[in-house]
Amino acid sequence: MFIAFEGGDGAGKTTQIELLRAQLVDGGQDVVVTHEPGGTDLGVGIRQLLLHGDEVAPRAEALLFAADRAHHVATVVRPALERGAVVLQDRYIDSSVAYQGAGRELDPIEIKRLSLWATQDLLPDLTVLLDVTPADGRSRRGDVHDRLESEEDDFHARVREHYLQLAAADSGRYLVVDAGLPREEIAAIVAERVIRS
Amino acid sequence: MFIAFEGGDGAGKTTQIELLRAQLVDGGQDVVVTHEPGGTDLGVGIRQLLLHGDEVAPRAEALLFAADRAHHVATVVRPALERGAVVLQDRYIDSSVAYQGAGRELDPIEIKRLSLWATQDLLPDLTVLLDVTPADGRSRRGDVHDRLESEEDDFHARVREHYLQLAAADSGRYLVVDAGLPREEIAAIVAERVIRS
Repeated sequence: MFIAFEGGDGAGKTTQIELLRAQLVDGGQDVVVTHEPGGTDLGVGIRQLLLHGDEVAPRAEALLFAADRAHHVATVVRPALERGAVVLQDRYIDSSVAYQGAGRELDPIEIKRLSLWATQDLLPDLTVLLDVTPADGRSRRGDVHDRLESEEDDFHARVREHYLQLAAADSGRYLVVDAGLPREEIAAIVAERVIRS
Repeated sequence: MFIAFEGGDGAGKTTQIELLRAQLVDGGQDVVVTHEPGGTDLGVGIRQLLLHGDEVAPRAEALLFAADRAHHVATVVRPALERGAVVLQDRYIDSSVAYQGAGRELDPIEIKRLSLWATQDLLPDLTVLLDVTPADGRSRRGDVHDRLESEEDDFHARVREHYLQLAAADSGRYLVVDAGLPREEIAAIVAERVIRS
């Protein structure tokens, strides 16, 4: 089973992934926790170019995220799924669609097509969208900022709107949770849905 | 005017670009000489990941070349063409199609589509293909080898065959020259064609 966690910066994805991982491991599951970008050695190099380098042309940025994804899926995600593990992943295709598509104003359909080519059409069985307002996200992110996190609130508002549209368009594959709820409450909602799947 | 130089490793592209550059500059032209991959600071980082890192998944490799190209075209090639310069470029889209498409056995049509998306459909006015046999290319490359150059001769044979097919399919945009001719003779053939264009 392949579960992606999506949401704006500061939505609490890392915390929720850890809570779900602990619960699944307690139940005897083989669980792989991973993330994009930067979930492989190659990806760490790509992430460095993306987030801490100079200005990157918009299409180059989209292609770098897709390259990171192609390598990560081929070398980490597919091998784990093939041996029967549950993969919990922090950010996947929807991050590219929402950030590069809505945020950077490239065509979201083309961005999604790039990622589907990169991954040979691997989609999550479930995507957990932790829905956070730009203001809440900013206040929860703390002091560390990279280039994307320092974008203005209207950028984050477009990203959020795009995430919600993706979930509405394919609701059977999504669980949308208010990121402002207490973390134990979110964890219980997520676990209930995963166990039911 | 945008002129791409293509051909297997050891075909003599660098030499021919320099000879044409000198002739055009003598004629008063504004000439920009550039190359892919690695024609920008970002591209140098990408090239490092591509040629000297660990094994890269085939689709990730194709996407990294496309990212390098997107950034290079947006920040170097298009600005030069817009101010009226002649751009002489060592490797462009056909390198990806021939190396990743034919060589790595991905679908060449998909590889070309990636590059056209990356560049917003920028094609050269002329592509000079310096046609070299695998054996001649190997003997002319000398001692420095990176990961791609150390591939076997059958890889280079597939690349060469694919280059020749590309030129045959769109002969009006290509000049195919035997790389085994004396370099001054090649330079004269190239200059004659460029001046006629």
